[in-house]
Amino acid sequence: MRIEEDFLGKKEIADDHLFGIHALRARENFDNSTLFPVDWYQAIGLVKLACYKTYEKFCNTAIKKGLSAPEGHQWMPDATIEALKKAAGEVSQGKHFEHFIVPAVQGGAGTSINMNINEIIANRALILIGHKPGDYHLIDPLDHANIYQSTNDVIPTALHIVLIDLASSLEKAINEVRNAMESLEKSFGNLLRQAYTQMQQAVPSTYGYLLGSYNDALSRDWWRTSRIRERLKRINIGGGATGTGMGIPRYFIQQVPKELREITGMPLTSAENPADATMNHDDLVEAHGILKALAVNLEKIASDLRLLSSDLYIHQSVRIPQRQMGSSIIPGKVNPVISEYMISVSHKVYANDQLISSLASQGCLDLNAYLPIIGCAFIESFRLLSSGCYSLANSMLRQLTIHPGKEQSEIFKNPAITTALVPFIGHKKAQMLAQHMKEEGIDIFESNQQLNILSTEKIQQILNPASLTARGFSLKDLNSDTWNQVQ
Amino acid sequence: MRIEEDFLGKKEIADDHLFGIHALRARENFDNSTLFPVDWYQAIGLVKLACYKTYEKFCNTAIKKGLSAPEGHQWMPDATIEALKKAAGEVSQGKHFEHFIVPAVQGGAGTSINMNINEIIANRALILIGHKPGDYHLIDPLDHANIYQSTNDVIPTALHIVLIDLASSLEKAINEVRNAMESLEKSFGNLLRQAYTQMQQAVPSTYGYLLGSYNDALSRDWWRTSRIRERLKRINIGGGATGTGMGIPRYFIQQVPKELREITGMPLTSAENPADATMNHDDLVEAHGILKALAVNLEKIASDLRLLSSDLYIHQSVRIPQRQMGSSIIPGKVNPVISEYMISVSHKVYANDQLISSLASQGCLDLNAYLPIIGCAFIESFRLLSSGCYSLANSMLRQLTIHPGKEQSEIFKNPAITTALVPFIGHKKAQMLAQHMKEEGIDIFESNQQLNILSTEKIQQILNPASLTARGFSLKDLNSDTWNQVQ
Amino acid sequence: MRIEEDFLGKKEIADDHLFGIHALRARENFDNSTLFPVDWYQAIGLVKLACYKTYEKFCNTAIKKGLSAPEGHQWMPDATIEALKKAAGEVSQGKHFEHFIVPAVQGGAGTSINMNINEIIANRALILIGHKPGDYHLIDPLDHANIYQSTNDVIPTALHIVLIDLASSLEKAINEVRNAMESLEKSFGNLLRQAYTQMQQAVPSTYGYLLGSYNDALSRDWWRTSRIRERLKRINIGGGATGTGMGIPRYFIQQVPKELREITGMPLTSAENPADATMNHDDLVEAHGILKALAVNLEKIASDLRLLSSDLYIHQSVRIPQRQMGSSIIPGKVNPVISEYMISVSHKVYANDQLISSLASQGCLDLNAYLPIIGCAFIESFRLLSSGCYSLANSMLRQLTIHPGKEQSEIFKNPAITTALVPFIGHKKAQMLAQHMKEEGIDIFESNQQLNILSTEKIQQILNPASLTARGFSLKDLNSDTWNQVQ
Amino acid sequence: MRIEEDFLGKKEIADDHLFGIHALRARENFDNSTLFPVDWYQAIGLVKLACYKTYEKFCNTAIKKGLSAPEGHQWMPDATIEALKKAAGEVSQGKHFEHFIVPAVQGGAGTSINMNINEIIANRALILIGHKPGDYHLIDPLDHANIYQSTNDVIPTALHIVLIDLASSLEKAINEVRNAMESLEKSFGNLLRQAYTQMQQAVPSTYGYLLGSYNDALSRDWWRTSRIRERLKRINIGGGATGTGMGIPRYFIQQVPKELREITGMPLTSAENPADATMNHDDLVEAHGILKALAVNLEKIASDLRLLSSDLYIHQSVRIPQRQMGSSIIPGKVNPVISEYMISVSHKVYANDQLISSLASQGCLDLNAYLPIIGCAFIESFRLLSSGCYSLANSMLRQLTIHPGKEQSEIFKNPAITTALVPFIGHKKAQMLAQHMKEEGIDIFESNQQLNILSTEKIQQILNPASLTARGFSLKDLNSDTWNQVQ
Repeated sequence: MRIEEDFLGKKEIADDHLFGIHALRARENFDNSTLFPVDWYQAIGLVKLACYKTYEKFCNTAIKKGLSAPEGHQWMPDATIEALKKAAGEVSQGKHFEHFIVPAVQGGAGTSINMNINEIIANRALILIGHKPGDYHLIDPLDHANIYQSTNDVIPTALHIVLIDLASSLEKAINEVRNAMESLEKSFGNLLRQAYTQMQQAVPSTYGYLLGSYNDALSRDWWRTSRIRERLKRINIGGGATGTGMGIPRYFIQQVPKELREITGMPLTSAENPADATMNHDDLVEAHGILKALAVNLEKIASDLRLLSSDLYIHQSVRIPQRQMGSSIIPGKVNPVISEYMISVSHKVYANDQLISSLASQGCLDLNAYLPIIGCAFIESFRLLSSGCYSLANSMLRQLTIHPGKEQSEIFKNPAITTALVPFIGHKKAQMLAQHMKEEGIDIFESNQQLNILSTEKIQQILNPASLTARGFSLKDLNSDTWNQVQ
Repeated sequence: MRIEEDFLGKKEIADDHLFGIHALRARENFDNSTLFPVDWYQAIGLVKLACYKTYEKFCNTAIKKGLSAPEGHQWMPDATIEALKKAAGEVSQGKHFEHFIVPAVQGGAGTSINMNINEIIANRALILIGHKPGDYHLIDPLDHANIYQSTNDVIPTALHIVLIDLASSLEKAINEVRNAMESLEKSFGNLLRQAYTQMQQAVPSTYGYLLGSYNDALSRDWWRTSRIRERLKRINIGGGATGTGMGIPRYFIQQVPKELREITGMPLTSAENPADATMNHDDLVEAHGILKALAVNLEKIASDLRLLSSDLYIHQSVRIPQRQMGSSIIPGKVNPVISEYMISVSHKVYANDQLISSLASQGCLDLNAYLPIIGCAFIESFRLLSSGCYSLANSMLRQLTIHPGKEQSEIFKNPAITTALVPFIGHKKAQMLAQHMKEEGIDIFESNQQLNILSTEKIQQILNPASLTARGFSLKDLNSDTWNQVQ
Repeated sequence: MRIEEDFLGKKEIADDHLFGIHALRARENFDNSTLFPVDWYQAIGLVKLACYKTYEKFCNTAIKKGLSAPEGHQWMPDATIEALKKAAGEVSQGKHFEHFIVPAVQGGAGTSINMNINEIIANRALILIGHKPGDYHLIDPLDHANIYQSTNDVIPTALHIVLIDLASSLEKAINEVRNAMESLEKSFGNLLRQAYTQMQQAVPSTYGYLLGSYNDALSRDWWRTSRIRERLKRINIGGGATGTGMGIPRYFIQQVPKELREITGMPLTSAENPADATMNHDDLVEAHGILKALAVNLEKIASDLRLLSSDLYIHQSVRIPQRQMGSSIIPGKVNPVISEYMISVSHKVYANDQLISSLASQGCLDLNAYLPIIGCAFIESFRLLSSGCYSLANSMLRQLTIHPGKEQSEIFKNPAITTALVPFIGHKKAQMLAQHMKEEGIDIFESNQQLNILSTEKIQQILNPASLTARGFSLKDLNSDTWNQVQ
Repeated sequence: MRIEEDFLGKKEIADDHLFGIHALRARENFDNSTLFPVDWYQAIGLVKLACYKTYEKFCNTAIKKGLSAPEGHQWMPDATIEALKKAAGEVSQGKHFEHFIVPAVQGGAGTSINMNINEIIANRALILIGHKPGDYHLIDPLDHANIYQSTNDVIPTALHIVLIDLASSLEKAINEVRNAMESLEKSFGNLLRQAYTQMQQAVPSTYGYLLGSYNDALSRDWWRTSRIRERLKRINIGGGATGTGMGIPRYFIQQVPKELREITGMPLTSAENPADATMNHDDLVEAHGILKALAVNLEKIASDLRLLSSDLYIHQSVRIPQRQMGSSIIPGKVNPVISEYMISVSHKVYANDQLISSLASQGCLDLNAYLPIIGCAFIESFRLLSSGCYSLANSMLRQLTIHPGKEQSEIFKNPAITTALVPFIGHKKAQMLAQHMKEEGIDIFESNQQLNILSTEKIQQILNPASLTARGFSLKDLNSDTWNQVQ
């Protein structure tokens, strides 16, 4: 056991624990079991690493210039800097996460997060230089691990880095779905399909139109997701508490973003006005709106395919793969769990969207105190959407097959098919045909024959699958004696 | 390693793992790290325990009556039933939770949850009777552990049990806040206070009115929360897949709720129409609406007190305790983290409320497939609100103090105080007084003296603190020569 | 043209306009076309009427006691009081609403609403006593029309009155749906029906279970809606600006609620702590949560029936009436517009629910400045739900018919029917039967015959429609030689 | 009275009513008073105008080529086409809106909207050619007014046109706020200001940082809003019921978008896949997300300025203009109604955002039936935001003044100012200074003198206003003997 102390009193901490008294206080104040995401933790490690590297350069330059150190007595010794860099590097790899004890739902704009990591880094660095955790006179969580940093610049900067990274992952996941959808389109695109509007039979279409429309929507999603990187590349590291950079070397302000660009390979740029980047998070609201648009498309795709493959659907043309036992009580039942998973994910994203914007609007003056909750919700949306996309693509779409069979013949029994004749025979004659089909339960060809409206050749030409789904008809199509017939 | 098999193929599972192939499939299909709440897991243990106890009685009665068993050859042997009961009891205590591998966000109406627990119970029971996990010919997750149960009755029944339990805990947590608030009211209730409407000075009031109003709101919250038990006591166990009870002994349908009442001490009742209880979850929507009303009150309390105790507030009469270091960069800064925690919790509850109702409305025909997500969100709201209440009460309210000082004297400098004179001198004279106060920066007494509207005695009598906050004035108050003065 | 003036300057107003300068300022500040609901306007008329009646009694008592008036010179003359009462009565009947020019979305806690109505009442009263609008030295919007009132007590009190009234209307509308549903249940309840869980075939059920479950849900909705009256009966009239009643005669505080009870016939009660009733609106959040639960049930009912009656549904057993032409392009198409209307209404209610709670949480200290928006959203939810219920009941349910035909025979072809045999033959034998049904495309009777599992008599006895939907089986059912057969 | 008939029966309609039986049916089915926005109505007029112009060209070409007409007997006569064009032109100017009787909340994907307008156009055209409304054998709402159109292409196309138009208006409104903010920045940007994080004093800053940050946020909003045009320029006119263009001349499909571009001056393009544009509305979700980000920024600005100008704020440096009487009871009170209006608008936008995405996700197969509700909510958001921006700019910001006075001197009494010294004296010495300031209630200069940490010259140099808000310090700043002093 070691003893740590802050202005409120003392706390006992087990010798090998890398967290310190500040993290302990936070855990007591925010007593819940929500999980802080490890990727944000890692990104904070990256930011701190960039800070220490920059400090090292700054310090070396100062020493070269013969400047004594501002921190009281001396610049940090090389060994300390090395240890800090190593510790931060470890954090960036997810190590020591078991010593991170702050929950996702918390108060404060991230001070508890920052301090827990400062404590982990300081204590780990102490071990690396051969000392014990808690020997803060040598390496202090604030004076050393937090050197030239503020919660209010470290935490949002790290968040932007995680989100950019997750955006890239999500792009890949979306493309997984797009690829699977394209394969389906190739295999089944030419099949005739009964289209439905408002769940009622509409004009005929093809599976190509349906699958292609999903794909077009996903292409927009991919493009928009790729824009997120652009939207979030602006970081405020070096801004200090409120973006004014007070108390921070100008060299540091300018250099850390460069260092971060190098470490992460991301096109990060220093916010022109870090005060703005500290207090306003409309960029997160907009970016999460992009995820919501994706969730909307994914929910529709999952819903549609669940419906078409369900026992409820009249044509049962679509078959989705079985993924797990469907019922604990009904033998042999298999459920559309992947669709349901996707829909559940989408609704989580909608809820996160509300959470993010309602908290983003609650910033007060120079800071938004709710960034931790906002960030955790955003990260969750990214992760769930990626997981949902992979499930959808690999556990459903890649094994999905379409067997239209009956569906194709039924299309000509559906009175809506008369729409195809409207340009040739007018709305009212078409309605007569439709009515007759309904009443007699016959298909359009028979109805036409009985009512004697068009010649057999003409109607077959018009209702030929290729003409049916060609986009529109040309004057040339009409350039015949169709009209004379229908008088 | 043992091998398990389902209709999709085989899987290797480590010998000591209590989960089986069904849980593994679910984990692959729903690859995310959201945490399923242990209390729901435990409640499922309770439900299964009640089922086994009932089965035991059923079976004993049948044997006494000389009835051979319906399950092919024979009733389960006593040792098997004992082992199942013991295993279920362990689950109800939270044991073996490390073998529960299904995430909170999933597809299916809880089949994966139910099967994972069936596997844990079957395998644990096998160990208890001296066999190895996987020896399902002896004790099978479906035929034995799931005997007479369905996901669709076990999972919602267990959810109701958890929620009733959490409602009781939340009641206690709310009362913690109420007690702390009452202490504050006792200590500081009589102090005059500047009231504000729309953030502008309004008429004077007392801290008693403010704290008492918080308390009144919390009393309603407590009362409503206590009603949740009533709302959710209806359970559908015995209903089977769709509430019709098909394939389930009538004795079982009638007895399990009794057994559960005994085990839990809760006033559970069998749903009159289990089909309704299986497909409709409006009761959850209503009950969570009650939590949302609580969250709204808690957010307001936390916001108000944060404002009154902030550096921004002109009178700084309210002082909240310091709970942890406030800034990693500004020495000595202490932040209102408990208020922020409470507000964050409230916003999480709002987001959960949206999630719950948007999914509750997506039930289709005989089932709502999203109960797992709905339930997990509901449980999270309960837990966070309880944690928030305890933090608010114990880490903030109990150490909060009020020092009105300057605030009290300023009240008479606030032109709004002239409202108190309106019944005595009319609206226009009051406005004159107010205008004069503003322009000269003087208090009401001086303004009155200079404009010579009321006698000094009269104005002091009217503005006496006790009269000021008495509710209204009586004819008797007017029964003097006030009016003659002001002509 | 007349000229009116406030502290900001002068405005020209047409002679016959009953609104005044305060309403004009509001309209300029809040330039939008959202509609303020007339029923709230009317309820404010009622509240003012009660205030004038009370003032009249107060004044008469004072005069009897020989007390001179507090308002400077004299009590209002009888003619003025009569005119105010008459004008308020007209407002309560919806008259002069064309002079109400404040939009629903506005700033301020209702001051603009209150002032516009004060102006209408004062000007209308002036006309009634033979004077012209604008002669405020005789009857003033503030000194007379607003006598002893505050925006902060008039507006919420009137809101509670509207909402209680709308709750009664909604109860009737819900009962309309319940009655229609009960008729359906009577006509079609005994028909066998294929149940679906997760959109896949589950065990068989009856239409009675489905329709009865809708009805049970609606019964809860009705009961909850009837509770809203109880929840909102607490009014804060007499509280003044912040609930302390400053400047208001105690007689007035006590009498107005009585007067209002008499006028409205509603069980209104004076809030014990009007400060609480002024600043906290958790009761509205809870009450609207009840509407949300109703919306959730209505959406599910509308969705289910749309699906079952759609061209998509395999059995097409449910037929809904045609209500209007379905397509401008596809001849003969009729769409489920009533279902879609109901679902649209539900989603509006969800959005309003978010709006109401997000603004209810934004109260600050002694007042919530957003009551106008909250109230308008609440009223809209009530009105839309009532309209939706009447449409659902009268334009859909009352003409809905069910023709199961094919559905009934298909039930025995559905492998899920084997569940009914599980208690008699165990899970594995049942799965064998199911598998065989699937592979061969045969019904359960044939499958049983081919696999020779149960005697023909036994299986027919078990699958008899009456036994199928009896809730569970009894030991007596087993008291035969079933088991010996299946060995 | 004239009689109109559809497949459900007959209806009487007043002779001069331009709506017909289809609109009447809709009004009965959707009995509510929500307002359909006139601008969408007008845009539908534009789309129809473009269709008639295209039809005219198509028809002329056909006639030139000697082709007889497809509609049974003959091409529409010139007079009919002229009349249709004129009628559509009138609709596009908002004329005859009193004959539009369909409410905003409705069922169906817009059929009722489309038919009501078809009826208005047909009847108006009939009048124009000297006939009476109802003479549909001459000009029919379907066969003529709806020629080659479908609800499912007309309604979304018109919606995109309105939204693009409203986006341009909103851009202007945002720029109004930006201009006002820039003026403020020019006038008050250099004033020192106490910054606050988590409502506690943080380091000092300037009003320039605050106002400039608002402006930066608004610049992003402006840029994003300008992107909406790009996002929504894709229209599906010519797609027919499901985007396949069945029954529509290819010439028409290609020409109408061109015609529309010409009429509107907007960069509209034909959707590459109209089926996608008919069923998917993720573009609306994304675009409204942009409005939500704006609402978040506007709420923060309004909130901040309300707080800083409120009676609550300690420094009361910010003064906002009085806009209307603030209280009906407290004389002289003026409230921040513009801020409250802005915040109310923002919350309406959040609610609309939820509504739009929750309905956008409920599309089913080839159509989303909820476009009317989605569109109306979107239009409302645009209108309210524009109104809010103009109010904010013209009724608040342009008359806002800042008078820091006391605020500036207090900055040096705030212990947080010690942060500025951290780089020079380290964290612990700074904390000592801060602690001493707090305990003694003295400013930093005095505290420094008493504790004797830095020389008077040095501390004044560091705390010089210019250095304080310079972004960071340079090595050169340290190039002195500061450190020696602090040893």
